[in-house]
Amino acid sequence: MESDRLRSWTIHLVLVLSTCVTCLKEVTALSDSTTDPFQFCHPVKQGMLNVHLVPHSHDDVGWLKTVDQYYYGSKQEIQKAGVQYILDSVTDELLINPDRRFVQVETYYLWRWFREQKARKQQQVKELVRSGRLAIANGGITSSDEATTYYQCLIDQLTWGFRRIHDMFGAEPLPLAAWKIDSFGHSREMGSILAQMGFNGVFFARIDYQDKYNRLQDKTAELVWQTSASLGTSSHLFTSIFNNHYSAPSGFCFDILCNDEPVNDDPDSRGYNVDEKVNNFINFARNVAKYYVTNNIIVPMGDDFHYQDAHVNFKNMDKLIWYVNERQQQKGSTINVLYSTPSCYLKAVNEANVTWPLKYDDFFPYGSDYHSYWTGFYTSRPNLKYFERLGNNYLQVCKQLFVLAALNTKDLKYLDALRDALGIMQHHDAITGTEKQHVADDYALILHKAVTGCEKITNNALRELMHKKKDESSHQPEIFQSCLLLNISDCAISEKSQVFTVTVYNPLSYVTSHYVRLPVTGVSYSVRDPAGTQLPVQLVPIPSPLFSLPGRKSKATVEMVFKAEDVPPLGYKSYYVEELPHRVRGKSDLADDGMDSTIGNKSPTVLFPIRNTKAVVLAATPESVTYTGEIVDEVHQIFTDWISQVVRVYKDDNHFELEWLAGPIPVNGGSGKEVISRFSTNFENNGTFYTDSNGREMIKRIRNYRPTWDVKVKEPISANYYPVTTKIVINDNKTKQHLAVFTDRSQGGTSHRDGELELMIHRRTLHDDGLGVGEALNEQQYGKGLIARGKHYVVLAVGNKPGKTALEKDIAQRRGMSPLVFLAKTSYSSFEKWAQKHKTEFSGVKQPLPRNIKILTLEPWSNNTILLRLEHLFEKGEDDQLSKSVTIDLRKLFVNLPFSHVTETLLGGNQQPKNGKLHWITEKHSQKKTEHTSRESSPYLITLMPMQIRTFIVKLKTE
Amino acid sequence: MESDRLRSWTIHLVLVLSTCVTCLKEVTALSDSTTDPFQFCHPVKQGMLNVHLVPHSHDDVGWLKTVDQYYYGSKQEIQKAGVQYILDSVTDELLINPDRRFVQVETYYLWRWFREQKARKQQQVKELVRSGRLAIANGGITSSDEATTYYQCLIDQLTWGFRRIHDMFGAEPLPLAAWKIDSFGHSREMGSILAQMGFNGVFFARIDYQDKYNRLQDKTAELVWQTSASLGTSSHLFTSIFNNHYSAPSGFCFDILCNDEPVNDDPDSRGYNVDEKVNNFINFARNVAKYYVTNNIIVPMGDDFHYQDAHVNFKNMDKLIWYVNERQQQKGSTINVLYSTPSCYLKAVNEANVTWPLKYDDFFPYGSDYHSYWTGFYTSRPNLKYFERLGNNYLQVCKQLFVLAALNTKDLKYLDALRDALGIMQHHDAITGTEKQHVADDYALILHKAVTGCEKITNNALRELMHKKKDESSHQPEIFQSCLLLNISDCAISEKSQVFTVTVYNPLSYVTSHYVRLPVTGVSYSVRDPAGTQLPVQLVPIPSPLFSLPGRKSKATVEMVFKAEDVPPLGYKSYYVEELPHRVRGKSDLADDGMDSTIGNKSPTVLFPIRNTKAVVLAATPESVTYTGEIVDEVHQIFTDWISQVVRVYKDDNHFELEWLAGPIPVNGGSGKEVISRFSTNFENNGTFYTDSNGREMIKRIRNYRPTWDVKVKEPISANYYPVTTKIVINDNKTKQHLAVFTDRSQGGTSHRDGELELMIHRRTLHDDGLGVGEALNEQQYGKGLIARGKHYVVLAVGNKPGKTALEKDIAQRRGMSPLVFLAKTSYSSFEKWAQKHKTEFSGVKQPLPRNIKILTLEPWSNNTILLRLEHLFEKGEDDQLSKSVTIDLRKLFVNLPFSHVTETLLGGNQQPKNGKLHWITEKHSQKKTEHTSRESSPYLITLMPMQIRTFIVKLKTE
Repeated sequence: MESDRLRSWTIHLVLVLSTCVTCLKEVTALSDSTTDPFQFCHPVKQGMLNVHLVPHSHDDVGWLKTVDQYYYGSKQEIQKAGVQYILDSVTDELLINPDRRFVQVETYYLWRWFREQKARKQQQVKELVRSGRLAIANGGITSSDEATTYYQCLIDQLTWGFRRIHDMFGAEPLPLAAWKIDSFGHSREMGSILAQMGFNGVFFARIDYQDKYNRLQDKTAELVWQTSASLGTSSHLFTSIFNNHYSAPSGFCFDILCNDEPVNDDPDSRGYNVDEKVNNFINFARNVAKYYVTNNIIVPMGDDFHYQDAHVNFKNMDKLIWYVNERQQQKGSTINVLYSTPSCYLKAVNEANVTWPLKYDDFFPYGSDYHSYWTGFYTSRPNLKYFERLGNNYLQVCKQLFVLAALNTKDLKYLDALRDALGIMQHHDAITGTEKQHVADDYALILHKAVTGCEKITNNALRELMHKKKDESSHQPEIFQSCLLLNISDCAISEKSQVFTVTVYNPLSYVTSHYVRLPVTGVSYSVRDPAGTQLPVQLVPIPSPLFSLPGRKSKATVEMVFKAEDVPPLGYKSYYVEELPHRVRGKSDLADDGMDSTIGNKSPTVLFPIRNTKAVVLAATPESVTYTGEIVDEVHQIFTDWISQVVRVYKDDNHFELEWLAGPIPVNGGSGKEVISRFSTNFENNGTFYTDSNGREMIKRIRNYRPTWDVKVKEPISANYYPVTTKIVINDNKTKQHLAVFTDRSQGGTSHRDGELELMIHRRTLHDDGLGVGEALNEQQYGKGLIARGKHYVVLAVGNKPGKTALEKDIAQRRGMSPLVFLAKTSYSSFEKWAQKHKTEFSGVKQPLPRNIKILTLEPWSNNTILLRLEHLFEKGEDDQLSKSVTIDLRKLFVNLPFSHVTETLLGGNQQPKNGKLHWITEKHSQKKTEHTSRESSPYLITLMPMQIRTFIVKLKTE
Repeated sequence: MESDRLRSWTIHLVLVLSTCVTCLKEVTALSDSTTDPFQFCHPVKQGMLNVHLVPHSHDDVGWLKTVDQYYYGSKQEIQKAGVQYILDSVTDELLINPDRRFVQVETYYLWRWFREQKARKQQQVKELVRSGRLAIANGGITSSDEATTYYQCLIDQLTWGFRRIHDMFGAEPLPLAAWKIDSFGHSREMGSILAQMGFNGVFFARIDYQDKYNRLQDKTAELVWQTSASLGTSSHLFTSIFNNHYSAPSGFCFDILCNDEPVNDDPDSRGYNVDEKVNNFINFARNVAKYYVTNNIIVPMGDDFHYQDAHVNFKNMDKLIWYVNERQQQKGSTINVLYSTPSCYLKAVNEANVTWPLKYDDFFPYGSDYHSYWTGFYTSRPNLKYFERLGNNYLQVCKQLFVLAALNTKDLKYLDALRDALGIMQHHDAITGTEKQHVADDYALILHKAVTGCEKITNNALRELMHKKKDESSHQPEIFQSCLLLNISDCAISEKSQVFTVTVYNPLSYVTSHYVRLPVTGVSYSVRDPAGTQLPVQLVPIPSPLFSLPGRKSKATVEMVFKAEDVPPLGYKSYYVEELPHRVRGKSDLADDGMDSTIGNKSPTVLFPIRNTKAVVLAATPESVTYTGEIVDEVHQIFTDWISQVVRVYKDDNHFELEWLAGPIPVNGGSGKEVISRFSTNFENNGTFYTDSNGREMIKRIRNYRPTWDVKVKEPISANYYPVTTKIVINDNKTKQHLAVFTDRSQGGTSHRDGELELMIHRRTLHDDGLGVGEALNEQQYGKGLIARGKHYVVLAVGNKPGKTALEKDIAQRRGMSPLVFLAKTSYSSFEKWAQKHKTEFSGVKQPLPRNIKILTLEPWSNNTILLRLEHLFEKGEDDQLSKSVTIDLRKLFVNLPFSHVTETLLGGNQQPKNGKLHWITEKHSQKKTEHTSRESSPYLITLMPMQIRTFIVKLKTE
């Protein structure tokens, strides 16, 4: 039974097919819907316990070693792990015996390996994939983290993985099962994305130990997860939780990394152990089966980087299967073992026609035992987490500009590298900070190289879009550069150029304003907007702790601030900046130090202090200096020599920023520390707070409480931490007061006491946690403990003020897709000369989109197509107006992008085979239809329901 | 240039071929002599340094794990080693790329693995072997030890390996190179055997560190070894000594057990290392080449149990070879790397036409550094060493009886198991005692099972030979049993039976006498010889320390002794024994305790004490009790509670026995101990003594001296120990005095001071030696330190007494092939009734062979053939008469073995291809012919020169 949403799409697609069969195939090469995706599953036996052996290797895309080291099998002294060998040997072993199966998960490695293979081997591997022997699960570049990741990145890394799969193997088979076996807890948004991508189910190993215990006892370790409060049954995702870890059962790990006894079936050998092995396996299987509802159990046969010598594994598994099943004839055993895949297991379970329990919340936090809550990683490596978010910002801008400027495909390699890099960063040991230090350094390097490479695209695109005609003058073409260190007020161009341009590109789908802040060394600056109007400029002192920041090369002591107003959607405004010889205006005024200052001039007025203190209060009364000015007011606070903060209110904004600077965290006394920023209010929030799920839907949290079981909390701090990807909220329902804090990267957050909201901003430990990394999280830079800087955006509101939800949505959106600033030196000696030759303002869309709709994705795809996603930003009921559905006419969206054809796909950009989608019966929804149905009259008129994302492959008209 | 001996054989064979082509093929399926064994070698390049990469895995046939555990890859926590996987993956990898090569050494594993393979894989492997890609080196069951092994066992284990190879792959190719890379020093007799088996050369890694250093410096690490003082140039063996160990060069060990970096040839990868790898390899090769004469160097690419995942090795070696050789074109490099084999390397070196230095002595002892002389293992695990020797004794008897009784081939499996077991025991971590304790226990178990199995053959054969006709009476057929614990005076049959028969089988080729000693519980016994004559019987007290020996179940306190006189060669005499109700005669008389007793009545008279003391003298004056009697006189000496000894002289013998009992060696005080038996005389031997080489030719030893270099000895004890397989001698040249001591197992021996000769009989250590085993040699049994018991046979002579050499040869021979005693309960109530139904005496030969000729081998072979070896027992010049050559007529040898055909082969029972034998030029023998040439007028008239062994495959007439 499919959801209506799917049905409607199906009808839609049939219409398209009837009008343009050829072009559809050409455009999408999507899968043949007549193919049964389960046709290659080994049959299960009725009346028996079917034990699905699923051979798999968990190949971290970086962890103890870098991705490069893992791929090549370098640095074996750190870990015996070489993915090239895994893929070599697994494919060889699959070719030997067609009964065998293997689950391949990390497309990063598969792609890298596949392109090294000779044509014959590639063809063999294609056939292995086609025939379901090499079964692709997940399909993303990596198996992502779910706590610290941003939904756009999650969608992207899966979609990009699917593209790689498509490039290797064509349209089928598609990944139909998700295999999130190592992520440290599971987000609802990740589930929602998987559901929307057409996955039939997902497999977990790591959920809270109490939750797992309970679920095993009451046989609810398999369930249907409603992964969205807005999307209804279309967000249903069947979820199977292993009874144990994802390792092979004890005694049956035949891998070279294990020491379990091989199956010795030589009766002449004193080590003959077939009877013992079979007995043990049958006991194991019967024991596991107690916890599950159907006559199927799944047995993951693998572990981290297993199958480097797959022969050993398969040789022994072949024997195990043979001898266990031999018991059926010999002794009437009712245990049936088979090679299987996640998909085939789902199919078998689905056929049991069981009514499944529903779950609505998520799987956070993850506690692996009573004192081990994996919640520190929500904050670990704050700089890497920030850089990842910045990297995605660049990726989105790069994608958009590539399309809007219709760049040559030769530049695609730069985009691909950044796609890869962001894919890698989503790995559950990358952005999480749970890798070794040298690996974290390597991630940063990969990302830095890719972002820098991407500047070739932004540069080419901005030139293409900005130059009115071929510049025949003697002027060198501009070089549009990013200043990636603006977060620490370091930018060579603005500091060393007397004349330069500032181009602010807005990747959002609506008009937005952006405060440009650039470190400068002059005393006065003139800034002209695209029309030539001179803008207010304020020079704001750079906080003094930055002057001694290791790695900051800048000599600037002030930042120039101006407001880039109303930058058009998917467009830019370009500003002409000149250093002036003497002060004209704008330097901030020094206000009184101290407390209870009022700064800002819009509502809500910010009253200091919000009691922003630490758990161990470092300085109840920080040293404070207040600067006020035309554009922005700031209070610079120094708590200790390693913690300081700027409180900042832009005059036009109705929220304020806290820009914190923390580190090196002192470790004298031999103990590490975790630094939190606590917001103390008089709210009565009754233990309740809200955190976002990967930057999208909010989830209610209650202190010392889990929605689905009676939790016993022995670690009251860590067990109450939740991931905050972009936003955390406390409310006072009586007084209608509301405090929302937005982050510029993922952090852990909680409300430990009523009225309090806290975010962990930095941490440093001196001891390994014993969970695998083998290293303390003791980040060093320039020989000292790491210093991190970041921002909190704070909204304080009373009552249901109109526009609050829009404001907050805007703040959150701008954390994910901020306008980016590109600087270029210019040899044009005046604004007028420059403006004459340049389009100083541009928008890629014909008109701003409605405030609740976002162009989530606009990127070059294959064969002269683009991949387009539209997203409804609001949850059901979140806002009276903005939560309504919206219809968009795709034809009226873009300037200069004439569509020849549009094909809608599932969220992943690939199409699900209709008969691959399994229907799962639940108590509440056994026959119920999906809530929102849209039937559009034209394939170009797209209606978006709350929280809905719709994905299109658009064939462009070739001119 | 071939030796004349080979030539004469060739002519002989051609003659045979011309008369009976069909039957020859049928009988022997020997190799086609037209095949060029080097045809599949990769060509070397003239003018370049040719670097022969030889992929190999050193697969110990037991060491840290048992053979079974090694084969299956069981107990991986002890060592990551699974030979089944090595052979699986190596063969798969060889099939992928025909350029690749691999050296397979241990036929034990190859055979075990091969018979598990399916027909298709077997066929593929055959093709790999045929085409030289899977190159067989050595070919024996294992790579044997050379210090503690008996020459007969060395020949057997190689021959049996060759048979297995023949059974798997047919006649070609034959092993042409020996690969003795891990043996702890090298014996001349082993070299002689290899030379006689047609090997073109041998490779060593372990020789004395000073010797190796010197040889590398003066480029004599490759040489021609004259391995026999008697056999002349036909015993020449080219010997190549690695510059280092047998591991892959540092940085190039790609095996999963290593951590060296793989070859990363992806220029986009940050780990790209092709240039570095190639540079390092070229530097390595140039450095090694400095030490060798030709433009070839051999680089062993492997190590202990490497290639379990051969893909990893070959993938990286393929790349290494490619990129190193690419330099030839790119940069004019003169380094040429190729996959090679030991044989192909020998061929390339041989083609250099270099004149090689000659070496005449052996490579003992082996010192790996100035304080590490590997000489303790000559004695380690004395009980295992004894059991091995006993096992061989049973094997030879089993083989002979199988042939003589013409047993059904269904019983061959028992013989094969014992052949395998003895093959395994020759392993350089088996008989040596250098294995872990649990492995030593396993060897003992394997051997015990095989010896016990072999009793089925001896039982069937003795029944067949002994029963005059089908016994139609009601008598149960006898069960002929061995008492394997006779060495500790423990035998259930003799102790618990009132009537039984004793059958003494003599495997020697001449008439011999044997003193039968059986523990008994009665007071008097009658023994009748085959003719019914009642024999003298003496009851001798069992030494009292045995009464409390753990594991001895016997309650007997006396042994019955009688002399089985003149037992015919390859035949038996059977005796009828009855317990008598009262004493008749023969109990030993108690003589005076003490010193200076004279016992025995033949020359030389034994005068006590020979000062048999310890390095730390445990008791200068032992407690002594003397027993004299009709047959034997004994002095029972107790030195301490853990060392005692019996001095024994049989009245008819002209030598005496010392039967020592040692252990548990006390370890209080925290130090282990080594127990020696020292013979102190007034000889002036000038530091000179003589030890046998694997029980055959004697080698002169001089204290603190090596024949080929100026040795620097920093460990004066251990550096002067040499292996004594059967015999050690000191002489006083002035007084013509001579002391020879024969052992019943291998021991270490030396002469530390003039006049002294010592043998180490037992040892126990409390600390691992750090050389790999990871265990102290601290043998335990029944919860206490191991107790060992054994014999020394002592000859003291003055002057060149006639018959001395014959006497000593006889003593030595009877240590290797002692008459064996089989006991059977009988239900015949009298000798007469029993004798009526039984052939009480039998000989398999028509007449005894000359005293200098031995039937070394008589065993069932394949296709109704037998394998026959005749051996000349004397060295050139050893005895005026017995060192002469002898001619034997094969047709007149055996009763009841009608030959249809005889084919002579090289020593290994396979035939060498004529064009496979390389000639090596030496200074002294560049053109010289082999010394002894025999041209017989008939293929049945066989002339044997001193020390010569000739091997025949005899086709039997089918009746």
